[in-house]
Formats: sequence, C-alpha cells, structure tokens
Amino acid sequence: MTTSFADERLHEAMARIRRFLDHDRPETPCLVIDLPTVRDRFAAIRAALPRVGIFYAVKANPTPDVVGLLAAEGSSFDVASPAEIDLCLARGAAPEAVSYSNPIKKARDIAYAHGRGVRLFVSDSEQDVRALAEHAPGASVLLRILVDSNGSTYPFGKKFGCSPEMATDLLRLAAELGLVPLGVAFHAGSQQLDPNGWDGAIADAAVIIGKLRAEGLSPTTVNLGGGLPAGYLAQPPPLAEYAAAITASIARHFGDFTPEVMIEPGRAIVAESGVIRSEVVLVSRKSYSDERRWVFLDIGRYGGLAETEGEAIAYPMATSRDGVPQVDVPVGPVVLAGPTCDADDVLYQNTCYELPLELRAGDHVDLLGAGAYTASYSSVAFNGFPPLATHCVR
Amino acid sequence: MTTSFADERLHEAMARIRRFLDHDRPETPCLVIDLPTVRDRFAAIRAALPRVGIFYAVKANPTPDVVGLLAAEGSSFDVASPAEIDLCLARGAAPEAVSYSNPIKKARDIAYAHGRGVRLFVSDSEQDVRALAEHAPGASVLLRILVDSNGSTYPFGKKFGCSPEMATDLLRLAAELGLVPLGVAFHAGSQQLDPNGWDGAIADAAVIIGKLRAEGLSPTTVNLGGGLPAGYLAQPPPLAEYAAAITASIARHFGDFTPEVMIEPGRAIVAESGVIRSEVVLVSRKSYSDERRWVFLDIGRYGGLAETEGEAIAYPMATSRDGVPQVDVPVGPVVLAGPTCDADDVLYQNTCYELPLELRAGDHVDLLGAGAYTASYSSVAFNGFPPLATHCVR
Repeated sequence: MTTSFADERLHEAMARIRRFLDHDRPETPCLVIDLPTVRDRFAAIRAALPRVGIFYAVKANPTPDVVGLLAAEGSSFDVASPAEIDLCLARGAAPEAVSYSNPIKKARDIAYAHGRGVRLFVSDSEQDVRALAEHAPGASVLLRILVDSNGSTYPFGKKFGCSPEMATDLLRLAAELGLVPLGVAFHAGSQQLDPNGWDGAIADAAVIIGKLRAEGLSPTTVNLGGGLPAGYLAQPPPLAEYAAAITASIARHFGDFTPEVMIEPGRAIVAESGVIRSEVVLVSRKSYSDERRWVFLDIGRYGGLAETEGEAIAYPMATSRDGVPQVDVPVGPVVLAGPTCDADDVLYQNTCYELPLELRAGDHVDLLGAGAYTASYSSVAFNGFPPLATHCVR
Repeated sequence: MTTSFADERLHEAMARIRRFLDHDRPETPCLVIDLPTVRDRFAAIRAALPRVGIFYAVKANPTPDVVGLLAAEGSSFDVASPAEIDLCLARGAAPEAVSYSNPIKKARDIAYAHGRGVRLFVSDSEQDVRALAEHAPGASVLLRILVDSNGSTYPFGKKFGCSPEMATDLLRLAAELGLVPLGVAFHAGSQQLDPNGWDGAIADAAVIIGKLRAEGLSPTTVNLGGGLPAGYLAQPPPLAEYAAAITASIARHFGDFTPEVMIEPGRAIVAESGVIRSEVVLVSRKSYSDERRWVFLDIGRYGGLAETEGEAIAYPMATSRDGVPQVDVPVGPVVLAGPTCDADDVLYQNTCYELPLELRAGDHVDLLGAGAYTASYSSVAFNGFPPLATHCVR
C-alpha cells in the first residue's frame, strides 16, 4: 500500500525502524520510535516559529527517551499530572521549563508541582485560581478560554476553558491574590487541519490582554495550545502555512504590542516518528457473499489505537506482502479489527483500506505515523492483553 | 441521590464497602469489590438456570480473588487470551472448565491453550478451525453465528460470528479434521435488556444442530454467550424473566432433543459487586450564564470508565454530601467529566445527573454497580495517571 510519506528523511527513518524490527524481532504488537525523527520534527517547528516557546505535550508520548531528547534539544514541556512533572525533571527538564497546563488539578497536586519548582500553570475556574494562590503562591497563571475549534479532527467542545468575560475577571482575581496574571491560553482542537484555525482565539486573547493592560495589569503571553497536525492517510497543509497564518494573526490582532507566545505541540513532534508493528491474527469472511475480508490484527482500540474511535485518525499501513516498490501486488478491500472479544474493537469499517489478497495470519501490518496517543492510551490488561511496548531507535 | 439498588443484600454490601473505605482510606480513584456479592450473583444465576453450565467471562473483571472465588464455587470460565487461561488455572480452575471463547486466536496461542489442557474452543472461520485441528487436535469446537442483537445496550455488530450456512459447513469441516463439532455459540449483545433477546439465535442454533444430527454428526451444545444485564441507573427486568424466556425458547426450538447449554455471564456476576470511589477535583462553570455546573472527578473514560462512551452505561452515584437517608439535600444538574486533558474525557453531558449543590473539591463521588468492565479497561498511563487500583472486601 502506498504511504503518504514522501519526505526523504521519513524514508530513512522507516529504514532504521525496519532494520531494528528485522534484527531484534520484538514481540508484537509494539511501537518503535525513531528518535532522529523526533529531533527533526522539533527542529522544524522551532525553525518555523523561531520566537515561540515550544512546550512539548508529554501526554502525546511520555517515553522517557523522547522526553530526554527534547529536554536536551531545549524544549519546554506541557504536563498534565504530577507523574509527568516527575518524568520531565528526571529526564533533564528545568522546573521553569514546565507548564502545568491541565486546568483540572487537585490542590495537593498543585502543591506538589510548586514544591518541585513549577511556576507556570493554566487555569479556567475560580476554584483553581484560588487553589493556585494558596498552594503555588506567586506563580504565573494563564487563563484558558473556550474556543470554536472548527476545522480540527478533535474539536475540544466545552470541557476546557471559560468565557472570555470570565477569564478576564479571573486574571484580575489572580492579580489580587498575588499570582502573576500572565495571559491567555486556549486550544484550537487536536489535529487542526486549517492553518487559520487559531485566528478567532488569538483575536479573543488580544482583546483580553489589551483590556487588562489598559487597566494597569501586565499580561504578556498567549499560549496557542496544541493542534499542529501530523501526516496520516490524509496529509495536512505544510507547517510553513501554519507558521505564516499564526504569525500574521498575532500581528494583526495584537497590533503594536508584541506578546510572548507559547505553543504546545505533541502529535506534530512524535506522530511521524512512530511505527506500530502488528501481526495478522486472522483473515476471514462472515458469509459466502461477503465482499470484504475481515483482517484481525493483534492490536486494536484497547491496545493503543484509541484514536481509531469514530475512525478519526486513519494510519497509513504497510504489510509484509506489499512486495518491492514499483511492483504492484493485487489488493482488495478489508475491514480491520482488533483482537479482543469487544464488539467495539473494530478499527476501520468505513475508511477504505485495501490490503494484499495474499495477506495471511502471521504476516505483519505496520501502522505508520503512530507515535502519538498510542502506547500511553493502551489498556492495562483488557481481555488479558498486555499494554503496548515501546522501543526506541537512534 | 437515590440509587436504584433496592435489594437488602446490596445494602449490606454497600455497608461493607463503605466500612472498608472509611477505615482504610485508599488512594482514589479505586474500585472496591464486595466478594460476597459476587458469590450471591453467581448463586442466583445458577439457581435460575440450574441445568446450564456457567462460564464466567473473565474479561469483565479479572481480579484474581474474584476468579478464585468463582472457581471455588464451581464456575467454569470464558477466556479471551493465554493470560486469562493462566489466571484461571492459577486460581484453581480445572482446564476442562475453561472455554477459549475468543474466535480470534494466534496459532501459537491455540497451541499454548492446548498445552495447558484447554479442550473447548469457539471459532467462526475456516482459518481458525484449521488452526484448531493442527494445534489442538481432537478438541471440541463451537461455531459462533452472527446474530441480530436488538435490545442490547452493546449490539455486537458483525465483528464476531459467521452466517449459519457457513457455520454449518465449518462444523462439518471440524468433524472431517478430527475435532469434536460440539455445537453453536452466539452473543445476543452485552447488557441485553430484552429477556427474549436470545430467541432468534436459539432458533438458528437449533436448525444447525438438527441438520447436522440428521446427517449423523453429534453436536449437543448451544452456548448462549453473554448479555445477562446488571442494574445501573435503569434497572433491567428480573433474572427470573430471562431464565424463563431462555428455557422456553430452548424447549420451543429444540423440541424433543435436549441440548447441553452454556452461558457466559460477566457483567451480571460482577457489576453490582463493585463501587468506584472517586474524588471531586474541580467544580466550575464555563460562563456566567451557564446553567449546569461542571464536576470533574479524578476518574474518567481513560481511568476505567470506558463504558461511558456514548453514555451507554449510566452508573448510579452517591456523594459524601448526600446526607442521611430521608433527608433531602438541595441538588442541581451537572456535567460530569474526567481529569485528563483529553476533550473526549467527558462522562455524562446528556444523561441527567443531579448532584448536591454543596459538592466541593475533595468530596467523594461513589459510582455504584461499577464492578464490570472498569479496572481492566483503564489506560496504563494516559496523561500520567496510573491505572485503577482494585481492592476486595470479604
């Protein structure tokens, strides 16, 4: 099957990953991360957005070697929990390079973060701002606003953020309580396919920051959150278009004032570094009139492919029956499913995948672009299957 | 909030669980399983279906003490993987009491099961039947048929089973290959709310078994699969109605021939034995005009509440602000969400939950009926949150 990865460096990465898989033959299913690709992706984002602070979203892939590499490259980190703080600090991040960006925090977790030196927090509620004032006195706080995240594969709904009016009041409250009202955060939706998807929220942030500066407060910062996309079966616009759109949007809405800018990419840094190797468990038909084969892999929705829910993310695939490049092998349509006894553990019924007619149990199916939101999602033991193992190549 | 659990024994179970929680104060979130309730539920099903072989679906809750208790009570086991076979045997099950009921099996997993003494398998494809003949020679095989699972909360779609015509042919093939063509299996859909939900599939099974017996083969068995429901916010019909409907359906469709009958309950045995204790992390509103509070718990979809997807399962809830019985506390509508930075980690937006207006961060919210399909589903480390811990009370 043809992959969408045209890029030369990604071919080199695939070659490194395949060499590892062929030589070490790890148990399947497993995720293999090509660390040079992680470094490349980070460097590309830094080059495209040179004046923007890059906070890697650890939740996308908390593999210690990935975090350590990014710390060494000078990345900062967006963390969701005390365990992610510990991981970053253990792998070389300075506490001032860590943003505790989860607005939903227990008071004791705020205190823990503060005790470990974390001084930057994202909030979206009065309760949390008051807890920060009590347990992280003097810390900097960004207020997260609700945004309309049209154009993204995963719009964020209303779970995070508050209205711009409430965010403005909460920044005032933060200042009253001795916190630093640093600015505004938002999230334009994960795997945002529209380079202009940040524009509306940047406009809202500029209004809030302008209003508070006019009142004598000194918010300086806009946190653009996540959303930078990765290539899957469908390729998003190039990174340069995102950088241009975001840069223009900030200039347009902020005018004379030049804000500090943060961004929290996760998927865009790690997705394309990863390949999941799976084994075909079963190829079958359900009836004599069935037009599509069912191909069951040894990985499914509960083994790390949670993002196949609703078929939102469609991974490019390559099989051990694909043959050498430029030689076509006969293919046919398939339904792809996972190995558990759970009826929802079906990966793709509507997305059109065509795999070699010769595909058999024991063959390999590699899922490409699978470095983000896979291993850490996997169930601890559903149906008795172990969580997805991760291996890194250098 | 009023729970739907009227049953006296369940009140006793709740008292035991609460005593444990109050005394041991385990870290939240956690699942507490009341083992006497597991024993009661198993005994109730055995009493309602006295001539039916009960195979506990280990996937519903693989806690070793639960498996051990059921083995001691004389249950058989439905397993999905080699790890579940090992668990059952380690906890006292005899290998002949284990059915490897996952139709999706690697050849080496079939060989492993056979090596451990397992002699009963469910299949739904030619490839698997041939693999059984090769790696588990002489074993008994049930062919799973596709069914229309109307009436269930989780219809099984087409992932498992094959057409009755194909199943008939595959039982013939099994006999030719030296396997025992034991009979027919199906699954009427999880949390089946219609006591007659098994009838259509029993009719199909009777036709297949009758046809093969007329040809001189000796299939004897119908495996009714899972689907027996548990009580959540909505109460299903009583177990006796299911037993009566199933018994009548078998008599009606099988006529003079009395088949051996197996059933694979999971949820119906363990759901009501379990309480998840969670802590309120945050109570907030998103705007000044918001009519509903958002209540964020320290457990969400990725911490063990996977069955809240689509709000399919609605757990009864009790909070530490509920007050003593017969004393009403003022309540109001809420949206319930989990603690991760994932926008899909929202538990209930459409199901109407009303929780005390006084609910605050640090209070407890107990999710009742949470013993099935929770702990083993939880993510290994998503967002840095650990998997759900399980404790048992006796």
